[in-house]
Amino acid sequence: MTETTPLQPPSQTEDPIETVALLKERAEGALVQGDHEALFTLVQDFPAIDIAELLEELSQPDRRAFLEIVQHQLPAEVVSEIDESLREEVFEILGPAGVAAVVSDLHTDDALDLIEDLDEEQQREILSSVSAGERAFLEEGLSYPEESAGRLMQQEIVCVPPFWTVGETLTFVREMEDVSDHLYDIYVVDPSHQPIGAVSLGALLKNPLDQVVSEIMRTSIHPIAAEEDQEQVANLFRRYSLVSAPVIDDAGRIVGMIIFDDVMTVMDEEAEEDLLLMANVGESDFHEPVWTTAYWRTRWLLVTLFDVLMSAFVITHFEASIQAVTALAALMPIGANLSGAFGMQVTTVMVRALATNSLREADTWRAVRKEVQVALVIGGALAVFSGGLVTFFLKNPPLGGVLAASLMLDMIWAAFAGALVPIVIDRFNLDPAISSGPIITTTTDILGFAIFLGLATLFLL
Amino acid sequence: MTETTPLQPPSQTEDPIETVALLKERAEGALVQGDHEALFTLVQDFPAIDIAELLEELSQPDRRAFLEIVQHQLPAEVVSEIDESLREEVFEILGPAGVAAVVSDLHTDDALDLIEDLDEEQQREILSSVSAGERAFLEEGLSYPEESAGRLMQQEIVCVPPFWTVGETLTFVREMEDVSDHLYDIYVVDPSHQPIGAVSLGALLKNPLDQVVSEIMRTSIHPIAAEEDQEQVANLFRRYSLVSAPVIDDAGRIVGMIIFDDVMTVMDEEAEEDLLLMANVGESDFHEPVWTTAYWRTRWLLVTLFDVLMSAFVITHFEASIQAVTALAALMPIGANLSGAFGMQVTTVMVRALATNSLREADTWRAVRKEVQVALVIGGALAVFSGGLVTFFLKNPPLGGVLAASLMLDMIWAAFAGALVPIVIDRFNLDPAISSGPIITTTTDILGFAIFLGLATLFLL
Repeated sequence: MTETTPLQPPSQTEDPIETVALLKERAEGALVQGDHEALFTLVQDFPAIDIAELLEELSQPDRRAFLEIVQHQLPAEVVSEIDESLREEVFEILGPAGVAAVVSDLHTDDALDLIEDLDEEQQREILSSVSAGERAFLEEGLSYPEESAGRLMQQEIVCVPPFWTVGETLTFVREMEDVSDHLYDIYVVDPSHQPIGAVSLGALLKNPLDQVVSEIMRTSIHPIAAEEDQEQVANLFRRYSLVSAPVIDDAGRIVGMIIFDDVMTVMDEEAEEDLLLMANVGESDFHEPVWTTAYWRTRWLLVTLFDVLMSAFVITHFEASIQAVTALAALMPIGANLSGAFGMQVTTVMVRALATNSLREADTWRAVRKEVQVALVIGGALAVFSGGLVTFFLKNPPLGGVLAASLMLDMIWAAFAGALVPIVIDRFNLDPAISSGPIITTTTDILGFAIFLGLATLFLL
Repeated sequence: MTETTPLQPPSQTEDPIETVALLKERAEGALVQGDHEALFTLVQDFPAIDIAELLEELSQPDRRAFLEIVQHQLPAEVVSEIDESLREEVFEILGPAGVAAVVSDLHTDDALDLIEDLDEEQQREILSSVSAGERAFLEEGLSYPEESAGRLMQQEIVCVPPFWTVGETLTFVREMEDVSDHLYDIYVVDPSHQPIGAVSLGALLKNPLDQVVSEIMRTSIHPIAAEEDQEQVANLFRRYSLVSAPVIDDAGRIVGMIIFDDVMTVMDEEAEEDLLLMANVGESDFHEPVWTTAYWRTRWLLVTLFDVLMSAFVITHFEASIQAVTALAALMPIGANLSGAFGMQVTTVMVRALATNSLREADTWRAVRKEVQVALVIGGALAVFSGGLVTFFLKNPPLGGVLAASLMLDMIWAAFAGALVPIVIDRFNLDPAISSGPIITTTTDILGFAIFLGLATLFLL
């Protein structure tokens, strides 16, 4: 029996989408022929995420038939990878005992992820079907705040005392019932169970059997408090290229460990969050129904609504001027829009510099000064260009002058606010990604209209 | 001698910024006292990234003094972590021989990273000072395109034939001169050097010494073509929670491996790229001088400039209408801005769904239909609200009706274009993150003004 039939010629990177499409063909074929053996092979041999996506791709009746055939052969990891929208359906087929078996098979972090969104009754039902030890693990995990290190960690760890030898440690690991393929580091703990070092499997292999682990352990292990926010966890892993890190409680005792692959998921989530916030969407509503989406988006659009109403209010004040020089109406969005776009550029660069810790307190004024200088250069070029256009095409040099001057002022404001607002928000320990954008856009709009129409009224009428 | 004096009580996650600040204090103290031994201890005991940032934080004369003292003790990893802006300075102190020694000590991926930005003469000078084998490795690495798997990989790998036993493999690893702490997987290769499986160190530890590796290897190893783009590499690692993956050439032969920590850096870079593109900044110009920044930003602002000029052109066409009903000038930005903001929400959610492969071809029309429905809900609410305001405050029901109707049309366009444009761009294998935003903003602006002023001219005059 071949273990895995390769789906691709070996000289190319595999394409997950093609893999899933081919799996779907095979699964549908096996379902038609009633070939259960082929389905068992499929779920055993392919990565959990591919099988999970295969399930999402199958039609509802096919999925049901597939799951009913393979349910006792289905690796727990597949269930943990299945999209949330299908969980209810899958849980129903597996039944409480089946789900409890899956939860017992998973590491605590994945098990938590599976049950944390269930309603309390379902949670209780599942918790009551797992072993007492497992239940204690899960209940401890659930006690940590969402998006904290405590939720990310797995409680399955290997700890040894510092006086053990490499040989003793190796025997201990070999005799463990269930060593994960994802075991990379063994932690060395003192009598009070505080982690004092870590030994990689590589170090265990290299060193003689009678060497004491405290002599070969590395001591910079970067312990993480269980309450720590997951974004900080991701920063630490990235910074120090960690494969794993111990998680500690208030007393400094080791309670679990976090592994790099969970951190990759977090990095992804945090990147998504930042990107969506920039466009004023709180979180992806791609899978949400119409009404939820409309509600979420409207909340964010209220800022824009405030912006347009204030702008309309400002413009109304200058109706007489517009009546006198109607070209003002056509030209007034120029400064507002250009400085708004520039302000967003400044703010985004700042938000990113803050997020990556590139902006130190001492650099604040240097950064602001630089942005104002950039505004003078770009604003100058834009002012000459657009002022020139007006002078040339509308044969109205004073109007061109007013446009150029107001554009310069708009750009300077955009640079100043774009640089300073994120820094000030960050200083108050708030997330500059959320509120900087709307503040910049709203102020550049309102000021843009007010400055241009104000200067025009002063000098042209 | 204590190996590392802990800088923090053990019950808290360490804060890298504080760590670096404390290191700076120690380093400055040691420099004043001329305590070379303390500096040697510092650079040996602390993580490379912390020492690299310490160097960035020191004043220029302190940095020079520090480097001249520790240069022969400085771990190669510290040099590889130093910010690009300081590399020139550091290389000057280390001299070509020192840099060549650093390059020889690093894995090929980090060594490449260090030399790829040097000018050709400097590169040649360094390449001629390293061993012939090292030089061949580096020249091969430099032959791969930037941002490809070939640049990310390290060529230092451990390969064994499939008929070897666990015992033979362990002996082989133990006898290797320089086993990295970052060794996680050993690759099993066939006679033509194509990777056919991988064995984790954990699997080696668990299995009896006389077991043949081909019986314990895992076969889904996700080989990556050396020319593959780094974004695809990151997607594979994330998807399959890989700790390492083999890199293969055109003939399917293994040429290196990529390790998770390099992928974390890539994930970070790609996230930054997406975020900055959303705000129309190509890449972070935080560390660039004023003129470069101004030049880069201006290129992106040209789209906005086109937008405002087109809008001005459209508005100019309706000057007579504005002259007749000046309230039009105050109200015309409402639809353009609201639909622009909504369109950006739609586009961002779509771009993200495409980037995470959540949007399959079959879902396209469902996604577009949903966004149009959301537009009808939000647009309806905004239309009633703003039309009502105009009717109530300006006592002008027809104007309120025109505003409401044009707002609805703007929102429907924003939903339609916001959803479809990224999909179409993606279908042409271009990056939807780059061009979707400007297309949405420009069309919502121009259409917003045209529809509102057009309807007003039709129905109010």
